[in-house]
Amino acid sequence: MAYRYPHSLNELIRYLAKLPGIGPKSAQRLAFFLLNTAEADAHGLAEAIVAAKRNLHYCPLCGNYTDEDVCNICADERRDAGLICVVEQARDIAAMERAGCFDGHYHVLGGAISPLDGVGPAQLKLESLFSRLRVGQVREVVLATNPTVEGEATALYLAKKIRPFGIIVSRIAHGLPVGGDLEYADEATLSLALAGRKEL
Amino acid sequence: MAYRYPHSLNELIRYLAKLPGIGPKSAQRLAFFLLNTAEADAHGLAEAIVAAKRNLHYCPLCGNYTDEDVCNICADERRDAGLICVVEQARDIAAMERAGCFDGHYHVLGGAISPLDGVGPAQLKLESLFSRLRVGQVREVVLATNPTVEGEATALYLAKKIRPFGIIVSRIAHGLPVGGDLEYADEATLSLALAGRKEL
Repeated sequence: MAYRYPHSLNELIRYLAKLPGIGPKSAQRLAFFLLNTAEADAHGLAEAIVAAKRNLHYCPLCGNYTDEDVCNICADERRDAGLICVVEQARDIAAMERAGCFDGHYHVLGGAISPLDGVGPAQLKLESLFSRLRVGQVREVVLATNPTVEGEATALYLAKKIRPFGIIVSRIAHGLPVGGDLEYADEATLSLALAGRKEL
Repeated sequence: MAYRYPHSLNELIRYLAKLPGIGPKSAQRLAFFLLNTAEADAHGLAEAIVAAKRNLHYCPLCGNYTDEDVCNICADERRDAGLICVVEQARDIAAMERAGCFDGHYHVLGGAISPLDGVGPAQLKLESLFSRLRVGQVREVVLATNPTVEGEATALYLAKKIRPFGIIVSRIAHGLPVGGDLEYADEATLSLALAGRKEL
């Protein structure tokens, strides 16, 4: 005889357990936390979810998330419009921006070429990227797709497609992560770190 | 120049980061997941939160969460009404029920005596427990407060208060958890396991 939670509690746990990294136990813990927390916080979360789904859309220029006509990076005239960094997902922009070492514009592909998952070039936002390149203002495209098989394949494909525009195409470096340990680095990373060595 | 997320995204991350065990990074990941997930799932979660806060209340008899007049454990006439298991929190009932070895009723205290946190007997649901005992149907109270300093203090306090009713008071056993390892057990658990040894 398994204990059944009240329906409303069950539903809450069921939806929480759909979140990534939240198993059944964590979902239970979160549900009880929400039941015990202030009404304002629980409702605040519910409303924030609804508001985010309603207000946020893709920037028509770069594909970043925005709640305005154009995202605040595309709208920022102090940024270098001659430099476009291509990333797989909108969340990658936040990671790059936190590093704070890039002041150009971005372009979100919406994924990477992965035949096994049925994602080919046609499923990625490539046409809008090429349109931006055709304007003629861009002098370099930095390919910052993930260092995975899919990301590499996408980078190679893009490089081949972009070079005919007469634009410099670069790829972010592979190597050991800062604070990493040689002993724990995998062979692929080590061999790329070695191949990419620089004279001091 | 720190990158600022769009307002709606920021709000969503802020509220998600208030959940227990969800740090800023996890909150970001969950927020992006919710943005990418089906509208129905995101809205389902938002509505489940609101519905749970609206529908769930404490069972007037035992203090368990319920969305009906009386919780399904108190309403179950097949359960032994002569046995009451006292727990600190409503979520402890779910844990006991999953073990599936108790078929009596419950009573939720809503916490444990903890002078440092300003929780004394007056802050716990004791009067409603004593009212249930006064009816005369209960023959045993099992104290299943947590095996912590506060839980033990609460159990001792309750035992002293309940004995005058002429009711058996018992405490769940301390000892090594199943699957545990003697080597890693702390001294307090080990000494209690030894003191509670049984002849085979």
